[in-house]
Amino acid sequence: MKPNTLFMTFEGIEGCGKTTQARIFVETLHQRDIPAILTREPGGTRIGDQIRKIVLHAENTDMTPMAELLLYEASRAQHVQQVILPNLRNGIHVICDRYGDASVAYQGVGRHLTPQLVKEANRLATGGLQPHLTILIDIDPQQGLSRARARNLAFDFAIKEGRFEEEDIIFHRKVREGYLTLAHEQPERFRIIDGSGSLEEVSRQIQDIALPFFEQSQGK
Amino acid sequence: MKPNTLFMTFEGIEGCGKTTQARIFVETLHQRDIPAILTREPGGTRIGDQIRKIVLHAENTDMTPMAELLLYEASRAQHVQQVILPNLRNGIHVICDRYGDASVAYQGVGRHLTPQLVKEANRLATGGLQPHLTILIDIDPQQGLSRARARNLAFDFAIKEGRFEEEDIIFHRKVREGYLTLAHEQPERFRIIDGSGSLEEVSRQIQDIALPFFEQSQGK
Repeated sequence: MKPNTLFMTFEGIEGCGKTTQARIFVETLHQRDIPAILTREPGGTRIGDQIRKIVLHAENTDMTPMAELLLYEASRAQHVQQVILPNLRNGIHVICDRYGDASVAYQGVGRHLTPQLVKEANRLATGGLQPHLTILIDIDPQQGLSRARARNLAFDFAIKEGRFEEEDIIFHRKVREGYLTLAHEQPERFRIIDGSGSLEEVSRQIQDIALPFFEQSQGK
Repeated sequence: MKPNTLFMTFEGIEGCGKTTQARIFVETLHQRDIPAILTREPGGTRIGDQIRKIVLHAENTDMTPMAELLLYEASRAQHVQQVILPNLRNGIHVICDRYGDASVAYQGVGRHLTPQLVKEANRLATGGLQPHLTILIDIDPQQGLSRARARNLAFDFAIKEGRFEEEDIIFHRKVREGYLTLAHEQPERFRIIDGSGSLEEVSRQIQDIALPFFEQSQGK
């Protein structure tokens, strides 16, 4: 890949605001003529979107944790080869809404498959590709779930993707702890943002932290 | 699982006859009042059938080899937990049309992911569960493909599952070699059957080899 081309991810529990914040951040980059694409997991490719339907469908309550993990990894493998690496090689920054850390937090900690096993599966699927920068938007699980469920009631598409919002508060607390542990293990890559503030407050914090990485990479 | 309960798999390239032969064999067991279920991969579960649609769909030509492998492994993980282990624990023999060896042959050898990598993924997905007996129905790839394509023309459902039949003869030769290598590595588990004969000839060979395992396990 071209030197200085960045792979950045947004992570956090349901309702933390990462999808909205990732969009705002990519728009900010575009306004500064910094080439970047926004993509997401699961999905981000034609094959990945088919996998997304299975893995997030609210009716698929009988999915085993290992099957769930491997579906995410299949989507991830397709995404790395078809979207992330080709863009990075072409000098286009890649901003991704969730990536391997999500599997460590959700399946490794939330579903008890263990972080170590999930990290091995991540390596298999991605060939070891790690983000340069990961923004973890941290929020109280109760606040996040209230937001996520309100969204799911408002949007028809989201109801069909509500399998994780159906999990109880204990599950989401474990996922949050999983994320915080990862962030403390890899402080050079992670930045933790308090997601409880207003949309504008959170997006300003993200820009303050992340824009310098991109401006430096553009030689500005 | 109950002692003497058997997990048996049928393997082979497209058109070798394994699906038909697995059915005939399970009927033979039932006629002898030997409790057995027939299942298949990919699929065999509600979740697995959704994965099957993605992985076999003839339009999904842009699937990467790693995504393909991980989809099979996701289906396999669900299948082991939801069907194979519960039946074995209940004293019911499990006969499965394809299992982990298929991934070694197709994705490991045919798609060049390497057998070693696929064996690791198999262990992850199955927790190490191996069949007690594997019948490899060996056939010339040209003959197998002719049969498989004739079947796909005859059955509407099969056309939509034709992604592997669209591969060229070189791919299927590699898959066959992958299977034969596995069989030579693990002679205690594998039995190779010549699939070029008539349906009756092949099924008689399979019964001669496999029935003693089951009769012994039933204490007959």
